[in-house]
Amino acid sequence: MAPIQNARVLFNSVPENYPIPGETTVYDTTQTIDLEAVPLNGGFLIKTLVLSVDPYFRGRMRKPEKKSYAPPFELGAPIYGHGVGLVLRSENPAVEVGKHVYGPNILHQEYVVLKELGPATVLEKHPKLPWTAYLGAAGMPGQTAFVGWKEYSDAKPGEVAFVTTGAGPVGAMVIQLAKQAGLKVIASAGSEEKVKFMQSIGADVAFNYKTTDTREVLAKEGPIDIFWDNVGGDILDAAIEHAAINARFLECGSISGYNGAHTPIKNMSMVVGKTLHIHGILVFRLLPKYYKEFYDTIPAKLASGELKYSEDVTKGLDKVGDVILAVQKGTNKAKAVVVVAEE
Amino acid sequence: MAPIQNARVLFNSVPENYPIPGETTVYDTTQTIDLEAVPLNGGFLIKTLVLSVDPYFRGRMRKPEKKSYAPPFELGAPIYGHGVGLVLRSENPAVEVGKHVYGPNILHQEYVVLKELGPATVLEKHPKLPWTAYLGAAGMPGQTAFVGWKEYSDAKPGEVAFVTTGAGPVGAMVIQLAKQAGLKVIASAGSEEKVKFMQSIGADVAFNYKTTDTREVLAKEGPIDIFWDNVGGDILDAAIEHAAINARFLECGSISGYNGAHTPIKNMSMVVGKTLHIHGILVFRLLPKYYKEFYDTIPAKLASGELKYSEDVTKGLDKVGDVILAVQKGTNKAKAVVVVAEE
Repeated sequence: MAPIQNARVLFNSVPENYPIPGETTVYDTTQTIDLEAVPLNGGFLIKTLVLSVDPYFRGRMRKPEKKSYAPPFELGAPIYGHGVGLVLRSENPAVEVGKHVYGPNILHQEYVVLKELGPATVLEKHPKLPWTAYLGAAGMPGQTAFVGWKEYSDAKPGEVAFVTTGAGPVGAMVIQLAKQAGLKVIASAGSEEKVKFMQSIGADVAFNYKTTDTREVLAKEGPIDIFWDNVGGDILDAAIEHAAINARFLECGSISGYNGAHTPIKNMSMVVGKTLHIHGILVFRLLPKYYKEFYDTIPAKLASGELKYSEDVTKGLDKVGDVILAVQKGTNKAKAVVVVAEE
Repeated sequence: MAPIQNARVLFNSVPENYPIPGETTVYDTTQTIDLEAVPLNGGFLIKTLVLSVDPYFRGRMRKPEKKSYAPPFELGAPIYGHGVGLVLRSENPAVEVGKHVYGPNILHQEYVVLKELGPATVLEKHPKLPWTAYLGAAGMPGQTAFVGWKEYSDAKPGEVAFVTTGAGPVGAMVIQLAKQAGLKVIASAGSEEKVKFMQSIGADVAFNYKTTDTREVLAKEGPIDIFWDNVGGDILDAAIEHAAINARFLECGSISGYNGAHTPIKNMSMVVGKTLHIHGILVFRLLPKYYKEFYDTIPAKLASGELKYSEDVTKGLDKVGDVILAVQKGTNKAKAVVVVAEE
């Protein structure tokens, strides 16, 4: 078989503020691949089906000398993240042809030879769910919400939770876990459409933080016992101000500072008087404890509709740069996924 | 018996920055008391023996409309805090004459009629300890260290702890608890004398933060697994920078901001990537759980010398204003106590 195009998305330059499609990342079609002849060296070949675009990508678009929990993207090389690939060929007995591989190490490239699974796994799909669901509610973001909530929320019926980016895949799962636990849920997002979605999944008080003052909402509907923070900065300060005694803060991200400078926190001294408990959450440090429980329960609940999810699907690997920017600006409508190819 | 002087320390004005002796508080000798005739109304009369002066006093010197965990001092009324009084007369069967009462509600006044014990308790003294010890290592500050450490340190042998204000009664107890748990202890304070004391109680690395750069010490001796924070502000930022993955932060105070503005915290976004755990600590919210264990073990260890403590004793109720200022400035040499009267 003749070599065919193997398009990819390359990391091209470190952005100063927001990433710029075509400059920060470039879509490259110069490479080809011979699917039958490409050597596997004990590994396997996948056809990339779907790719996830997540807020944490921004942190990887940095100079390599800057340390952080996720390794930086390599300049000139394809970016990578969570994705699902169909196994076309394999020399690894644990990875059978026709199966699907899911993991955080899937290149943004049409076809990929992986030497080993690494952090990826061979995943069985629930028959009623699309593969894209495994990038959001049934994947890393859903796991993030699940493990963080299980480990640190200490939720009690009647308590009040405040969830930011409540229309995203993490926030939406947190809203539903909080409602199932019997809490009153306040949730914020950045558009009227997202507010409607948050209401549809059970948020008691849903508001658009761009048009409604967060402090006014918290003053009226709080104090809050649990804060799920994906935003950081001034919203974190507002949450501290309106926290109840012994409140738990689940710190999952701080997107308000990803594309510029982080706003310093003015109210940290209140942590003592309110005896607050603030926990940083990274899914991969907690997942081993909850992995089985997550896959035993969440996909089935998503398939039955007991848990709801929402996706913003973009078709075409060439659109990845635009989707990355939309996720940083919050102009995506729901969990951002890119469909690269059909099975 | 004729009425005698009943001197007291009055809260006179809300300070803008540091409290000013004679202005923020005034020593007043205009009142008298007839010890035999003063009506008890079911309560009891105590002779104030020793009084504690603590950092948190500053937070109580505020306008009453400003909320905080400890009630504000009342303008024109005596200030109050932890103290020990000898019971001279009593109409309360639970409070016998000749016994001693210890609690956070002892007026800075030579003689006090208390209607009820309230948060105070009748306390038996270890024969080898002075009453002043019950204001520091064997009292509220020692309890603070004990309950915070027990509840939140999750200390494991070989870990590294960083303790601020390590020559104070809280910090000194934390240093010793950390050493007993098998940790390496880095400790800071603001004078060479305090550094020597911290070394004498076991700190592996003791330094004067006024002459040595905290970040340099932490870069060399860290990263830190446990941070005991009595200071806040820039030192909290430094600790976040030099925290290990999954480090525990025990937030007990932020004296760097008590006499002016709190310095905003720049590094809070690192809480996610390092999965830090930050806990606010107030002794009275945890003490019920550990009260018996504390009094069953700590006074005896202090008496035997297994645990060490240090005091800066001032004689005379008229000196309280000076001692308050010294504690805020850190010019006291150790736990500040005021001896009002002998038994």
